[in-house]
Amino acid sequence: MQIFSTVAELRAFTEEARRAGHRLGLVPTMGALHAGHLQLVAAARAECDAVVASVFVNPTQFNNPDDYRLYPRLPQADTDLLAAAGCTAAFLPSVEEMYPQPAALRFDFGALERVMEGAQRPGHFNGVATVVSKLFHMARPHRAYFGQKDWQQVAIVRQLVADLSFDLEIVAFPTVREADGLAMSSRNRRLGPEARAAAPQLHQALAAAAAQVRQGVPPAKVQAQAEAALAGAPEIGLEYFAVADAATLQPLAAYAPGRAVVLCLAAELGGVRLIDNVVVDGA
Amino acid sequence: MQIFSTVAELRAFTEEARRAGHRLGLVPTMGALHAGHLQLVAAARAECDAVVASVFVNPTQFNNPDDYRLYPRLPQADTDLLAAAGCTAAFLPSVEEMYPQPAALRFDFGALERVMEGAQRPGHFNGVATVVSKLFHMARPHRAYFGQKDWQQVAIVRQLVADLSFDLEIVAFPTVREADGLAMSSRNRRLGPEARAAAPQLHQALAAAAAQVRQGVPPAKVQAQAEAALAGAPEIGLEYFAVADAATLQPLAAYAPGRAVVLCLAAELGGVRLIDNVVVDGA
Repeated sequence: MQIFSTVAELRAFTEEARRAGHRLGLVPTMGALHAGHLQLVAAARAECDAVVASVFVNPTQFNNPDDYRLYPRLPQADTDLLAAAGCTAAFLPSVEEMYPQPAALRFDFGALERVMEGAQRPGHFNGVATVVSKLFHMARPHRAYFGQKDWQQVAIVRQLVADLSFDLEIVAFPTVREADGLAMSSRNRRLGPEARAAAPQLHQALAAAAAQVRQGVPPAKVQAQAEAALAGAPEIGLEYFAVADAATLQPLAAYAPGRAVVLCLAAELGGVRLIDNVVVDGA
Repeated sequence: MQIFSTVAELRAFTEEARRAGHRLGLVPTMGALHAGHLQLVAAARAECDAVVASVFVNPTQFNNPDDYRLYPRLPQADTDLLAAAGCTAAFLPSVEEMYPQPAALRFDFGALERVMEGAQRPGHFNGVATVVSKLFHMARPHRAYFGQKDWQQVAIVRQLVADLSFDLEIVAFPTVREADGLAMSSRNRRLGPEARAAAPQLHQALAAAAAQVRQGVPPAKVQAQAEAALAGAPEIGLEYFAVADAATLQPLAAYAPGRAVVLCLAAELGGVRLIDNVVVDGA
């Protein structure tokens, strides 16, 4: 596996690969890799001739300086995992390499980012769209792979690709979970023992709510019951629990036939902010 | 010259050209071509292996419906001129082809678009950045050519390219003028005889102001004298006259050593809105 730290190296590699007619897959990550990331790499390997994984903790998508500072950084372990997973190249740039000058341009995705993560983390999706655009322009992928744990992020990136006519396909994969249901996340490494013990309750609440949605329990009641259940766990500080249209992300007053529903939450556990979601297909 | 009306045709052509190692030039236009556009095509021909010119009156950059409706459309004449100028391909898409769905994403360029055209035409540069991003993703140019008559547009496009790390070079060419100094513009076709007769006063005012800037006359005085001169022409409705930093586009209180100055104006003549500018290099 080749390891690049400069944009020029990555560009030269991807230009040559495309010139040779290879199909390129990109797996953008912030590192501290887990099985969820490696699932994306495996899928990219199966579908593409060359796979580039980027490892970059993108400062512009953090609204909380502590969250940025404390985000796990494990470049050696990450490159070992990526090499073992069969990546063709890893891209680990510095902040200065990605942002030689501060960006003046700001993205706004309208209603899609007025809810959930966009509402709770001002500027988050501007940072996401900026870094994803940069990575697309550097890695020139035919396909780019994202995890559905960041459901709203996937929706934003799909909108970005459609609205700016990026010539690539977004592929999203279901969340990979620990045996007890906790969604895999790089931030899980920061959970203390008590927070880790309480964390599976997040997915339990989502699963219970999904069962209610399937039974036709009204959205407001589903939300209230999930909020009440999580309020009973003193280790969990719930930020939001949303019952939303899976495509528009807007909160639901009632279910609509044939439209999928997404249940999304964010919570703080012992100083670590986690998100998770479950999708219920439309009936 | 090949003529494409679909994105798929253009993409196939540009993908093949890049695969063959050709250097691609893009000249984005709104058609009703004049010598200014053809200068850009000639430059692209001299520097690139293949030249794509797009002809698309982009609805999302018009804030005034009449301006959009009345914008000259001359596809046959345009393709004849592009073929004669040695273009490799012309791209003339429909609105539906460029915008199969309305965009949700909005661009904001901050201070760069709080002045002049950005201030006078709400949403204009969002539309410009959107269509330029789309064209870049479709035509995959190594170089894209723009006219300096749209000075602020060039600044916005350069910012777009830098902030999103587009892998291409922006090339800007000086404004081409009629013998009497009027900046060439597709909108000049819409000028009636009286408006056309008055129109050279725009460049005369800019040229007089530029002479004053070179003499060190303070910006506020330069602006006031230009405004007064143009107020004397009943056919001309001045919208703004700005004395600005050529890079930041912000209005100047005083000159700074080594920094170029741009003089920009917009005016309405008999229902037609024209812009023009002159740059004075920093001393």
